[in-house]
Amino acid sequence: MRIYDTIVKKKRGEALSDEEIRSFVFEYTEGKIPDYQASALLMAICLCGMDEKETAALTDAIAVSGDSIDLSEFGNLSVDKHSTGGVGDKTTLVIAPIAAALGCKVAKMSGRGLGHTGGTVDKLESFTGYDTSLPTDRFLAQVRDIGIAVIAQSGNLAPADKKLYALRDVTATVDSIPLITSSIMGKKLASGAKTIVLDVKCGSGAFTKTPEDAELLAKNMVSIGNACKRQVAALITDMDRPLGMAVGNILEVKEAIDTLKNNGPADLTEISVKIAAAMAHLALGIPYEKAIKMATDAVESGKAFEKFKEWICAQGADASYADNPERLPRAKYSTEIFATEDGFVTAMDTEAVGIAAMQLGAGRNSKEDRIDHTAGIILHKKTGDKVKKGELLAVLYTNEEQKATEARKTLINAYSLSDKEPKKKPLIYEMIGVK
Amino acid sequence: MRIYDTIVKKKRGEALSDEEIRSFVFEYTEGKIPDYQASALLMAICLCGMDEKETAALTDAIAVSGDSIDLSEFGNLSVDKHSTGGVGDKTTLVIAPIAAALGCKVAKMSGRGLGHTGGTVDKLESFTGYDTSLPTDRFLAQVRDIGIAVIAQSGNLAPADKKLYALRDVTATVDSIPLITSSIMGKKLASGAKTIVLDVKCGSGAFTKTPEDAELLAKNMVSIGNACKRQVAALITDMDRPLGMAVGNILEVKEAIDTLKNNGPADLTEISVKIAAAMAHLALGIPYEKAIKMATDAVESGKAFEKFKEWICAQGADASYADNPERLPRAKYSTEIFATEDGFVTAMDTEAVGIAAMQLGAGRNSKEDRIDHTAGIILHKKTGDKVKKGELLAVLYTNEEQKATEARKTLINAYSLSDKEPKKKPLIYEMIGVK
Repeated sequence: MRIYDTIVKKKRGEALSDEEIRSFVFEYTEGKIPDYQASALLMAICLCGMDEKETAALTDAIAVSGDSIDLSEFGNLSVDKHSTGGVGDKTTLVIAPIAAALGCKVAKMSGRGLGHTGGTVDKLESFTGYDTSLPTDRFLAQVRDIGIAVIAQSGNLAPADKKLYALRDVTATVDSIPLITSSIMGKKLASGAKTIVLDVKCGSGAFTKTPEDAELLAKNMVSIGNACKRQVAALITDMDRPLGMAVGNILEVKEAIDTLKNNGPADLTEISVKIAAAMAHLALGIPYEKAIKMATDAVESGKAFEKFKEWICAQGADASYADNPERLPRAKYSTEIFATEDGFVTAMDTEAVGIAAMQLGAGRNSKEDRIDHTAGIILHKKTGDKVKKGELLAVLYTNEEQKATEARKTLINAYSLSDKEPKKKPLIYEMIGVK
Repeated sequence: MRIYDTIVKKKRGEALSDEEIRSFVFEYTEGKIPDYQASALLMAICLCGMDEKETAALTDAIAVSGDSIDLSEFGNLSVDKHSTGGVGDKTTLVIAPIAAALGCKVAKMSGRGLGHTGGTVDKLESFTGYDTSLPTDRFLAQVRDIGIAVIAQSGNLAPADKKLYALRDVTATVDSIPLITSSIMGKKLASGAKTIVLDVKCGSGAFTKTPEDAELLAKNMVSIGNACKRQVAALITDMDRPLGMAVGNILEVKEAIDTLKNNGPADLTEISVKIAAAMAHLALGIPYEKAIKMATDAVESGKAFEKFKEWICAQGADASYADNPERLPRAKYSTEIFATEDGFVTAMDTEAVGIAAMQLGAGRNSKEDRIDHTAGIILHKKTGDKVKKGELLAVLYTNEEQKATEARKTLINAYSLSDKEPKKKPLIYEMIGVK
């Protein structure tokens, strides 16, 4: 099997065999195929596509390229979620306890934030003592006992994806549905859960710009997941505005706690309940509408919040911080942004909001950067909101005052104001894979 | 100008600007763009194409990426030719003296052979003393005096093409009309001639497999050449059989001398006369039919042969070898291949014939290999010929007897025999750019 022949075949628009795909993924991961041949093949895949059988083979090859977690003891009950990257997306903190309260087994490996997107692991580390690197036996025992454990991704989880993604990132070969699908689903397969719910974002900062493209990607991921013997559902959600009002680690943790106490922003509450319900629907085999009621009840009754405390306590954090989140550290400096005219927020550059938070110290520009858990932004107005001149748009928080200047500029530019009321967009465009 | 943005643009099928193309070529040649980004762009060009304006910009950028020769003192009279790679293609040795005898100025830089194709410079070095590296002033003076000089390509002629071609070769991005056109025409522009005649081969071993594809490539090269202010004509010729009967350096030199003495194989004579006539037609502005008569007369009258001797003598060789080619060195060993059945030669794998010659020592497997000038093959039967069982098909020559075994096998497999007479194929399919 020569990589040259594989490139020729794909360039001609022919379907690659399982063996050709496997051999490409393994040899590239082992450093036996040079980057320049891999990038030629990736570009040919971008332009000529891959059918479902090829995409499934690529997904599987990525999944088995490194470590994987065996969750078979939990059967269909083991659940996982994935979001295609968001700003202010703290849903895992809310969904995991709701799903666990409903009887699902949440055995989840999460990432750290990079660039304009945050990471669940960074948010959890806002709690002093929270251990993100449990050994496998303790990780599984905790899932067995309380139904939930969230740790940092192993360094050797789907290493093929790590290497391929780094190459795609610099060769303009990211936005290909089979490549995105295999990248996301390859990691999810390696993570071991039988039931997976995907949050596919659409909008200016996302892989997929329109609901139609997002639907194509979502359907592709669901059917590839099914082909790989997983139960998969997908929501298509709007990314033209951040989710909730808080961006930045401790600020988001507080908002997640508010939401679990049935006192969170409507958009965050709705998405969290619906994703948790989709998990319960697939994992427990209960009707989706009933699962929504159960999830809502778990929030309203306080069961989900109790599960949250049980979880972070089991992983070494002091759960009393959840009862009194005002005791969590605060940033030394804050600065406010006010509207300079009357009108409506017609659009928000979500990516720029994430960048502003990063500039304040909440995120990493490169993998080695340290983050400031207290830094971030509280939005007071988002897309669709009416504003009056002088009204508060947002507050920026940081421990290093000089960082606020640049971040202010970025955030001000992220807002588009106009006197014409914008058309209301749905929060959730569609749900795929629920009955 | 970021290469990433250039890749995105081409991937979307948009036309690149002159500036984007120039910046890609120059920065890649200087090592400022990594191979993996260049190969992604090359694949996008292969699959999305380039229009005439883009191809002209790419050709020009390649042409000016290194040294170039100023032949402006000769005006339209300066002529050059290029063949898209052939086996047994010794036409330069025949065409150059015919064209010079007609008054053209042949100032040519030629390459060495690599793999299954031979090189004019290797053939000329069959004459002891022939100097392939004249300094520019002596090169130009010889063209002025006798109308012809042929030297080896400067190491720094179109270095962008050298680097791009090496990458295309390993990333399956060779067979793209704009990339082939810019590679060939870029080098021709740097070589300085105002008048260029191209021999575009079609057949199994060529870039273009069918006469239709070859026509597309030929027309593209002619119009790009015209856009770059050159007079260009192109012949589309058959490559499903070697040209002439000899393959290997001294064997080919002898055949070229026979042809100049009006005693060569019909196919070699016809192509050489027609290419020389096309040069004279464009360079001197005489009607093509009249130019053919003049070129034929130059061969029949012995004028072209005299010019040949004058040429090699001026470059340091002993011209008496041309009068008595039997004095040129001969290989120590020879072995014959006979037909094992009655029938017709229905097809020949031209590339395999070239490989057999290389195996005998006539060519190089890698750039560093030394070649045996006496090694090679004399074909006695070619595609279309009738053969009887026991009749001689070919003779193989080498100085190292053990090399003959493998070469015999390769050459035997290159012949396809059948009892059905094959359809006659034309030698020249079409001429483009002559009136």
